[in-house]
Amino acid sequence: MRARRDERVHQDAADPLSFLREEFALPDGVIYLAGNSLGALPRSVPGRVGDVLEKEWGEGLVGSWNTAGWWEAPRRIGARIASLVGAEPAEVVVGDGTSANLFKAVVAAMRLRPGRRAVLGERDNFPTDLYITDGATELLGVEHRRVEPTVEGIRSALAEGDIGAVLLSHVDYRTGELRDMCGLTALVQEHDAVMVWDVCHSVGAVPLELSRCNVDFAVGCTYKYLNGGPGAPAFTYVAARHHGTARQPLTGWHGHAAPFSAADSYQPAPGASAFLSGSQPIVADAALEASVELWERVDQLALRAKSLALTDLFIEGAREAGFDVLTPLDHDHRGSQVALRHPHAFSIVRALAARGIVGDFREPDVLRFGFAALYLRYVDVHDAAAALHDVVRSEAWRDERFQVRSTVT
Amino acid sequence: MRARRDERVHQDAADPLSFLREEFALPDGVIYLAGNSLGALPRSVPGRVGDVLEKEWGEGLVGSWNTAGWWEAPRRIGARIASLVGAEPAEVVVGDGTSANLFKAVVAAMRLRPGRRAVLGERDNFPTDLYITDGATELLGVEHRRVEPTVEGIRSALAEGDIGAVLLSHVDYRTGELRDMCGLTALVQEHDAVMVWDVCHSVGAVPLELSRCNVDFAVGCTYKYLNGGPGAPAFTYVAARHHGTARQPLTGWHGHAAPFSAADSYQPAPGASAFLSGSQPIVADAALEASVELWERVDQLALRAKSLALTDLFIEGAREAGFDVLTPLDHDHRGSQVALRHPHAFSIVRALAARGIVGDFREPDVLRFGFAALYLRYVDVHDAAAALHDVVRSEAWRDERFQVRSTVT
Repeated sequence: MRARRDERVHQDAADPLSFLREEFALPDGVIYLAGNSLGALPRSVPGRVGDVLEKEWGEGLVGSWNTAGWWEAPRRIGARIASLVGAEPAEVVVGDGTSANLFKAVVAAMRLRPGRRAVLGERDNFPTDLYITDGATELLGVEHRRVEPTVEGIRSALAEGDIGAVLLSHVDYRTGELRDMCGLTALVQEHDAVMVWDVCHSVGAVPLELSRCNVDFAVGCTYKYLNGGPGAPAFTYVAARHHGTARQPLTGWHGHAAPFSAADSYQPAPGASAFLSGSQPIVADAALEASVELWERVDQLALRAKSLALTDLFIEGAREAGFDVLTPLDHDHRGSQVALRHPHAFSIVRALAARGIVGDFREPDVLRFGFAALYLRYVDVHDAAAALHDVVRSEAWRDERFQVRSTVT
Repeated sequence: MRARRDERVHQDAADPLSFLREEFALPDGVIYLAGNSLGALPRSVPGRVGDVLEKEWGEGLVGSWNTAGWWEAPRRIGARIASLVGAEPAEVVVGDGTSANLFKAVVAAMRLRPGRRAVLGERDNFPTDLYITDGATELLGVEHRRVEPTVEGIRSALAEGDIGAVLLSHVDYRTGELRDMCGLTALVQEHDAVMVWDVCHSVGAVPLELSRCNVDFAVGCTYKYLNGGPGAPAFTYVAARHHGTARQPLTGWHGHAAPFSAADSYQPAPGASAFLSGSQPIVADAALEASVELWERVDQLALRAKSLALTDLFIEGAREAGFDVLTPLDHDHRGSQVALRHPHAFSIVRALAARGIVGDFREPDVLRFGFAALYLRYVDVHDAAAALHDVVRSEAWRDERFQVRSTVT
């Protein structure tokens, strides 16, 4: 065990991305494996936000909408995210939350296929994807059909010929399974349906190539692997070929071509900007922008290689400790998280937390661990796997402190 | 003039609300008359936001959703706003932007009146109200009818018998005209239509009594007179009698009765919480919460009296300087802003800004000045009116520096 730990220390010393850990404020004694839920705080954020508050808002006041670039923040941050997801700057805009953006994208996609009778979704997608699609399809007067998100399941549903749009998650939020974005997009488009990807659990974890895969729409979250802060605004990708034709329904003034003209009727702004609605929370945008700037220095292919090495390492440890691994072992089908199944999942997560190892629990029996390769070390993963083994071997999870359920996990 | 200014200094000395100015960071040499657009920075905000960043996010990490109360922020801040608008705590929730919330409220209102064929709105409402209502009515398959928001105009439109919901702004964003909330709500309800108020330009400026006026829905902005920061999240009021029956369409997981159950289908949360969609920008919420806490110490009736005294004073000065006053002179029909009309409105606004007096311009010829009685002094208003007079008398606005239009104002 000691020899193996030493090997991890050597891996960290040789890691070309190790300089990035210094950019994050991580509490002592914590191994943070929940970056798939909320990313860690970049050290550059508090200063940036403080400037926005005290200089831009406090001194610049309303004029900062112009002079401090607040008005352009959704496009400026969107352009930075575009460079991370294989898109052009005008194809990505930051604003509103994931749920609202999924609503806009699903409605816009269906409007591109008038007459089609259903949106196809995953049987067990993240709850908000399901509920929002229910909400959108009810207003559109179409069906929301749900299938297992396998190639066969999707192909068979598409064969009905009446699917207008398909919403899939690129990485499954529970199992960490990574789907074949290019292949599934092509399959959907062969049936003349429109492809909407939820990339919440893949952006910043897996290199995305939205343009190369010919994706129509994508919606992503910025508070997970992009470290934008709790509840940070989401982003929407709209393929250039849909600019000017895709019509989203939350037609607020920030998405207008001439927002200050007080025009009598709505005219969509150019590019993905037409997917904006109202004013954005600039203070939250400031945190996100400082976080996203870090990515200029990140080689995403190296990050992906490290992520796979980290999850390989953890999976190996979890299997030795006797856990069922829900996450695909095959690299091509794995995101940057590892999901394990255990009848005492909840208590094990609590027992690990008591040792400073932060993962999370999902009903009914799943332990989830996210591996943010920007700030995790090989030795952290080694130590986390060793602790997991020890908690099970010693039955430390039986302690009554670890049995109490709180309302929110 | 000197004697009149001394009188204002005495008024400030006697002002029972004068202690509040100290709570705001206002730059030296600036008289800020754009608090109706973006409120000033409360001094408590940077420290609060810094704590949320460095302690709650940086150290508490994902656990802060529970331990730091992030999950409850929309309800907790909503309850504070409820106490300002004459509502019960469960009737108000903070989240998303004004535009998205107007969409939710308009759809929910129309769903309470199935079979009705139109939403009634104002001919010249704030653009986002118009565009969002267009977006919502298109999806609902109903009409968006627009009338002059006079009692006669509204009564006559309601007489058609097919109006399901009415959306009005409590204070007109250009003229500052204050509408009779109780009277118009009663008129709308006499015709069995549902009343939705946009209170963006009245909350924090005029005491609101949403419950007493029997309002059905209201949506308000927090970055104007509530000083929540640029683009701060908006709030939605849902009358208790509609809880459990009103259905909004952006059915995201934060509005679910059991958000962590991964339930197969959407079940609305109790109270106004059902109007939440996804995760909220917690960093922006922190700024808003610190701002809203200030209101515990504010006597809203005293604030209203001061606001009227300030706008009286400015109107008197503007009339002496020869301006057309668009704002009603009658106190019962005036919000907390003064709108003036002048053919050289744009250049006058710029010339005033060069003297440190911040107002704003709205196409084609309107000067707008907001009077945030929380932090403005009588002497500020005296000085602003004197400068306005001087800019016109001396034709200082003719300077070529004041002719250049920027894209955003």
